[in-house]
Amino acid sequence: MVSFTGERTLDGVAEFDFDLTVDGQRVPATVWAPQGAASPRPLVLMGHGGGQHRKADTLLARARRYARALGYATLSIDAPDHGERARPEEAQAMTRDVAARARGDAAERPAPSPIFKSMGERARRIGPEWRAALDAAQTLPFVGADGPVGYWGVSMGTVLGVPFVAAEPRIACAVFGLGGVRPKDEAFAQAARRITVPVEFVFQWDDALAPRETGLALFDAFGSAEKSMHVNPGAHAEIPAFEGASWEAFFRRHLGMGD
Amino acid sequence: MVSFTGERTLDGVAEFDFDLTVDGQRVPATVWAPQGAASPRPLVLMGHGGGQHRKADTLLARARRYARALGYATLSIDAPDHGERARPEEAQAMTRDVAARARGDAAERPAPSPIFKSMGERARRIGPEWRAALDAAQTLPFVGADGPVGYWGVSMGTVLGVPFVAAEPRIACAVFGLGGVRPKDEAFAQAARRITVPVEFVFQWDDALAPRETGLALFDAFGSAEKSMHVNPGAHAEIPAFEGASWEAFFRRHLGMGD
Repeated sequence: MVSFTGERTLDGVAEFDFDLTVDGQRVPATVWAPQGAASPRPLVLMGHGGGQHRKADTLLARARRYARALGYATLSIDAPDHGERARPEEAQAMTRDVAARARGDAAERPAPSPIFKSMGERARRIGPEWRAALDAAQTLPFVGADGPVGYWGVSMGTVLGVPFVAAEPRIACAVFGLGGVRPKDEAFAQAARRITVPVEFVFQWDDALAPRETGLALFDAFGSAEKSMHVNPGAHAEIPAFEGASWEAFFRRHLGMGD
Repeated sequence: MVSFTGERTLDGVAEFDFDLTVDGQRVPATVWAPQGAASPRPLVLMGHGGGQHRKADTLLARARRYARALGYATLSIDAPDHGERARPEEAQAMTRDVAARARGDAAERPAPSPIFKSMGERARRIGPEWRAALDAAQTLPFVGADGPVGYWGVSMGTVLGVPFVAAEPRIACAVFGLGGVRPKDEAFAQAARRITVPVEFVFQWDDALAPRETGLALFDAFGSAEKSMHVNPGAHAEIPAFEGASWEAFFRRHLGMGD
């Protein structure tokens, strides 16, 4: 069930909001595309991070750039317990919690965080939600049912994205990052092993949320013949800007050009 | 002492051969640049691999592409005991030896290999040789004395290049790869720690010549604030083609554009 809830155009990029109902829950979604786009084009699904929402600043900027520079469409949904699916005070508390943990700031760290507590349930929910959103997006004439589809998601976008991509044959390539496999994450490692599409995996070498050995273990787990791990110094939130250019080159290589 | 020994132009790229005399030894060198180039431009020094020479296929192709696509000049020299500085039968034996080792082919592996035996002496020699070659190249009007200079070298190009780049203030950025720090390589690790310019470090995850932990140790050792390690599956000689595009983006970012 899809209902369009809003539409706006800014600087050559059109943004369409719609609501899905999946398993009884409302799932707010947004699609961006070049203004006036009418024919099928590559689509990138972008999974936001923990404590973020589907229009978080960096994600919004990337969706708009992909429309303008690549001619792509981008699809984003609010993950369970996030964005419009959380009460504002809950969402704010979660954002603060994730930021404190990403800084490695133990003093500000309440335990246990609700964001980690319910991650398994969230991962189970978001697979059907992404599939419903992708089904809906592919009915749009400027996306189309046969165009190439990529996935981008780091941090929680990787935790929730790896099981989804492993199970979704429409995804042709994926950017992951800022996540890892801990010894107890056997189901997550199994999902990574089922992924065989090209993967670019970005990892921060001083990430308080993902120790080095867990990142190397996730890279090893990916079943893809083409997989590339980009390691940079710095904390969780400090991915260098040049990795953004690398993601674009990766998507261009595997999804081709839009307009 | 510099003497020009040859010049040819092919498909828009000019190639100039010259000889240097450094510490009593002849050092053959080559500079490539866009045909008709007259004004200063970025220069990339390319250090070839063990058993190769200054015009090895991949290096020649990259030098020609950098001239055509980026407008850059490229400088390459025969390393000690390599190219015109080895007897043909010695050079061929060395090439076979390196290839067998890169395949991890122990049966074909003679011990000890002359290429590894004299690496320390080679590293001591090549510093003054690179400096003399760079001095000579910078007198050329189409290179100039003030243009930005980068270094590219993997495998032996890293083993010999790290100490050189650590000591040469004219190098603004460097691509290294396919090498590592073993526990006994303390001098090499110290040189890496002295490097503070941006580094892109490409590493093959199944490299019979450079175990994973040695590559991670070299990445850790680089003193640069901007350093990025790209890990790909596969053997020593199997760097994916898309890393070549990444090197170009790296040099464009730090050296700017030529013509």
